[in-house]
Amino acid sequence: MNKIITIGREFGSGGRTIAKMTGEQLGIPVYDNELLAKIAEESGFAKEYISEKSEHTSLGDLVARGLSGFGNYTQMTADAYLWKMQRKVIIELAEKEPCIIVGRCADYILRDKADCLKAFIYASLEKRAERITTVYGDVSKETPEKRLRDKDKRRGAFYSYYTDMAWGDPHNYNICLDSGALGFEKCRDILCSLYTEK
Amino acid sequence: MNKIITIGREFGSGGRTIAKMTGEQLGIPVYDNELLAKIAEESGFAKEYISEKSEHTSLGDLVARGLSGFGNYTQMTADAYLWKMQRKVIIELAEKEPCIIVGRCADYILRDKADCLKAFIYASLEKRAERITTVYGDVSKETPEKRLRDKDKRRGAFYSYYTDMAWGDPHNYNICLDSGALGFEKCRDILCSLYTEK
Repeated sequence: MNKIITIGREFGSGGRTIAKMTGEQLGIPVYDNELLAKIAEESGFAKEYISEKSEHTSLGDLVARGLSGFGNYTQMTADAYLWKMQRKVIIELAEKEPCIIVGRCADYILRDKADCLKAFIYASLEKRAERITTVYGDVSKETPEKRLRDKDKRRGAFYSYYTDMAWGDPHNYNICLDSGALGFEKCRDILCSLYTEK
Repeated sequence: MNKIITIGREFGSGGRTIAKMTGEQLGIPVYDNELLAKIAEESGFAKEYISEKSEHTSLGDLVARGLSGFGNYTQMTADAYLWKMQRKVIIELAEKEPCIIVGRCADYILRDKADCLKAFIYASLEKRAERITTVYGDVSKETPEKRLRDKDKRRGAFYSYYTDMAWGDPHNYNICLDSGALGFEKCRDILCSLYTEK
């Protein structure tokens, strides 16, 4: 059985960077953007479309915006199909080799897999705002805080829609790390030590 | 400035035991029941009363039970007084010496203290039910799951009432550890390493 780490993360928490640092230290592959390519291949959808949709359902968006109504059934069918492909790719990856999978409800999809360490990386709004301004630049007309809140809301709605669980609830994970308070290196060290000893 | 660890914990998660193990390893005192004695001394209330009330306000109880109304003002005044004493004792302890403080909103009370590591210990309902049956015995007519849910609800209501934050939300802590999945020793080791390196 392969040892897997899934990393859920808040936007701007550096979860993706911590995943890469952990993968390098452990010598195992990290699937983040690489996952998109695989889902694209499997589903026939364009990578850009998946990047937009694989963590934000149209229905999730509706819920996040507080709208209701009949929705767009064609879009919902496409969402359901994409979710199925995403699930398939993640399960196959986890069966193939030890690896780290970032986001995309991998923790939920692999919830019954014994040898899977489920981590969640988060940080305060202030720390995340600081980080997205530094890393992504001040590209938006919105304040960083507004962008973060919107992104949190959309990811949360997606997660709840497919998993029936609250996103960021510690009970969905084995460990939750505040990257802003602990620092990236310490987060990496903790994940590596849990992976090695497990 | 003293280094402090605050440990919030779910009932049955073993948070108190992990606090003791961590304190022993680090050679610093742990305040849990010891805290009750100090609050009793400061407030003039009996220790048993504080044990019952220091994490369960009367108002919290009302909220948890979904009741509303005018409430009992005398009781509410006593609650407010007790909270004030609890706050005073925790702040004084943190100023006096490096230590570990279990529960009682210490994470919130010490939120502006730079050298304070805020941890939350939790576990699945199944693991906690198993533990409370083993440790406390099958003393209640209620199922362990029902007892846990009630206790969670009451602690949560108390925490939210005094802190305006959601209990168990990772953002209130620097690290959240699933003691059921990781094991007590590993939780202790992570806390010790964070304390030593901080």
